[in-house]
Amino acid sequence: MRKERSGAELIRGVLDGNRLALARAISYVEDDHAGAREILDALYPHTGRAHLIGVTGAPGTGKSTLVTALTRSYRERGERVAVLAVDPSSPFTGGALLGDRVRMTALSGDPGVFIRSMATRGHLGGLAAATADALLLLDAAGFERILVETVGVGQAEVEIAGTAHTTVVVEAPGLGDEVQAIKAGVMEIADIFVVNKADRPGVERTVSALEMMLEQKRGGPRTMRHHGRAMSVTLPDPAQVENGWTIPVLKSVATGGEGIPAVCERIDAHRVWLQSSGALTLRENARILYTLEKMVDAALRRRIGQTLLDARMTELVVAIRQRALGPHEAVDQIVGQIIGL
Amino acid sequence: MRKERSGAELIRGVLDGNRLALARAISYVEDDHAGAREILDALYPHTGRAHLIGVTGAPGTGKSTLVTALTRSYRERGERVAVLAVDPSSPFTGGALLGDRVRMTALSGDPGVFIRSMATRGHLGGLAAATADALLLLDAAGFERILVETVGVGQAEVEIAGTAHTTVVVEAPGLGDEVQAIKAGVMEIADIFVVNKADRPGVERTVSALEMMLEQKRGGPRTMRHHGRAMSVTLPDPAQVENGWTIPVLKSVATGGEGIPAVCERIDAHRVWLQSSGALTLRENARILYTLEKMVDAALRRRIGQTLLDARMTELVVAIRQRALGPHEAVDQIVGQIIGL
Repeated sequence: MRKERSGAELIRGVLDGNRLALARAISYVEDDHAGAREILDALYPHTGRAHLIGVTGAPGTGKSTLVTALTRSYRERGERVAVLAVDPSSPFTGGALLGDRVRMTALSGDPGVFIRSMATRGHLGGLAAATADALLLLDAAGFERILVETVGVGQAEVEIAGTAHTTVVVEAPGLGDEVQAIKAGVMEIADIFVVNKADRPGVERTVSALEMMLEQKRGGPRTMRHHGRAMSVTLPDPAQVENGWTIPVLKSVATGGEGIPAVCERIDAHRVWLQSSGALTLRENARILYTLEKMVDAALRRRIGQTLLDARMTELVVAIRQRALGPHEAVDQIVGQIIGL
Repeated sequence: MRKERSGAELIRGVLDGNRLALARAISYVEDDHAGAREILDALYPHTGRAHLIGVTGAPGTGKSTLVTALTRSYRERGERVAVLAVDPSSPFTGGALLGDRVRMTALSGDPGVFIRSMATRGHLGGLAAATADALLLLDAAGFERILVETVGVGQAEVEIAGTAHTTVVVEAPGLGDEVQAIKAGVMEIADIFVVNKADRPGVERTVSALEMMLEQKRGGPRTMRHHGRAMSVTLPDPAQVENGWTIPVLKSVATGGEGIPAVCERIDAHRVWLQSSGALTLRENARILYTLEKMVDAALRRRIGQTLLDARMTELVVAIRQRALGPHEAVDQIVGQIIGL
């Protein structure tokens, strides 16, 4: 039996860096628990200190091992590290946890490391919104580095990675076709490329392919990080500032730790650049706007779900099936009900 | 220059089966044209005659070739056929059209065949909602069979296929791992399995794997086609009726036409079963409810987009960044604005 704790207790616990309180608070967020809101509101003023590092890449690139190696490096410097593994495909696969076994063995027992996997618990919740809330909790708990690991195979994942301050995209040799497949989305969000498994044949080809794509991109127009149309209208255009950062292509063998110091150094350099160039403010704007959009969407979806559960829906469905009512007319009625017209 | 046509002209044109009018009306739907709504409302009473056949499968299974072969068979019987190719991944890849080149060569010039590719034109539109509207138009235009082709690699695609009356899932030998990967979602929606490219080695292994999975499924609980929680609450449970259909595993070599008559025969048998068992009504309920959910979601997303474009958003973002306002408090304000509180 889990003991129920009061909101005030959990808030204090998270601020004190208490692991159990933090775990419980994240579960509240995942489960849409009624108590989550009070905790999030109270903790928000205590956030904004953590460096959010997104790590994304296709399955097989060794991104979990890289995350583990980075975590170790930060720990050697005495920094507290949280790892949030987000798997957007999990409602489908039943919740495969990203590389958790690898990490558990390597990092277990270290009180300065907190590892958590996130999965959607139902369509309506919204993984992006839940992830944003979990990041908020980890930030409030005082973790200096938060590594957000996502599988880079689709748009949702790319977008989650894109909400980080610094995004590391992991590649591996011998996945040649895939470089092509992912470049459209991933080229837009990468701050740093790491070609992991660099002891395998074909590594130079992968590096050159990435460098060629980066070269082409530099020549063309830059349309980075416009999460939703809103960005370009009401907020300054990040593209004007972000030209000051040169995206590096690094090599690593994460299992042996080779190349990891250079990856850490570039991540640090990116953070320094974000702060000195003013890009950090723009990224924060984009992150906030993107998160708001997802949260508003989740809130409205919850209302849609409730409305569709309404007994009156059965009548609408039957009327539509019998062609007495068009679906768009029904949508007008439902939207009217949701927005209280 | 395209001539502007009045709504009444387009409505008449679609009902007459005029191809240009139909193409224009579908473009209206894709583009969220102001005139789309009038057309859809007027045509809806003229729908409900078409047999909607979903065809889904991973890339490389030859599903476009199978769709072409099925189309030919229906044409030989004198039936009018529409093919709607839906590619949910297209905002990412830039709009690769499913097997269009294959089909164009094989079927071009036949006035009884209409082929169209759908893609999302922006995040907010909602591919599922646009697809539902396009199906409505094709149905009103008098096509007896409408083949909806989707790439079966994720959840959205599976759901689109699941809105058909009869869903054909295409597999191919030698994609062994993939059978495992897709089974979770695809097993739930398949009415008929076709192992295409059956002249390749390993065909019997693929057939047995599918049959084994079906056997396991028959032993376990059946939770088919509950699109959203609403189904199980307000409408009769389809699982009670759908036990009367045995999902077959067929073999074909679509390029040579082998096995195609058997696939056609099973599709026909499924339709007869749907009608005689009463399952058709339940599927129509599920289809309508699913479509309504997507359409309501799309309508509300449009409102979110408009609200986020509001100049006041900049203030909210700045307040959040400065930790003067929590994101959830901002969401309350935005939702309040959207629903007019």
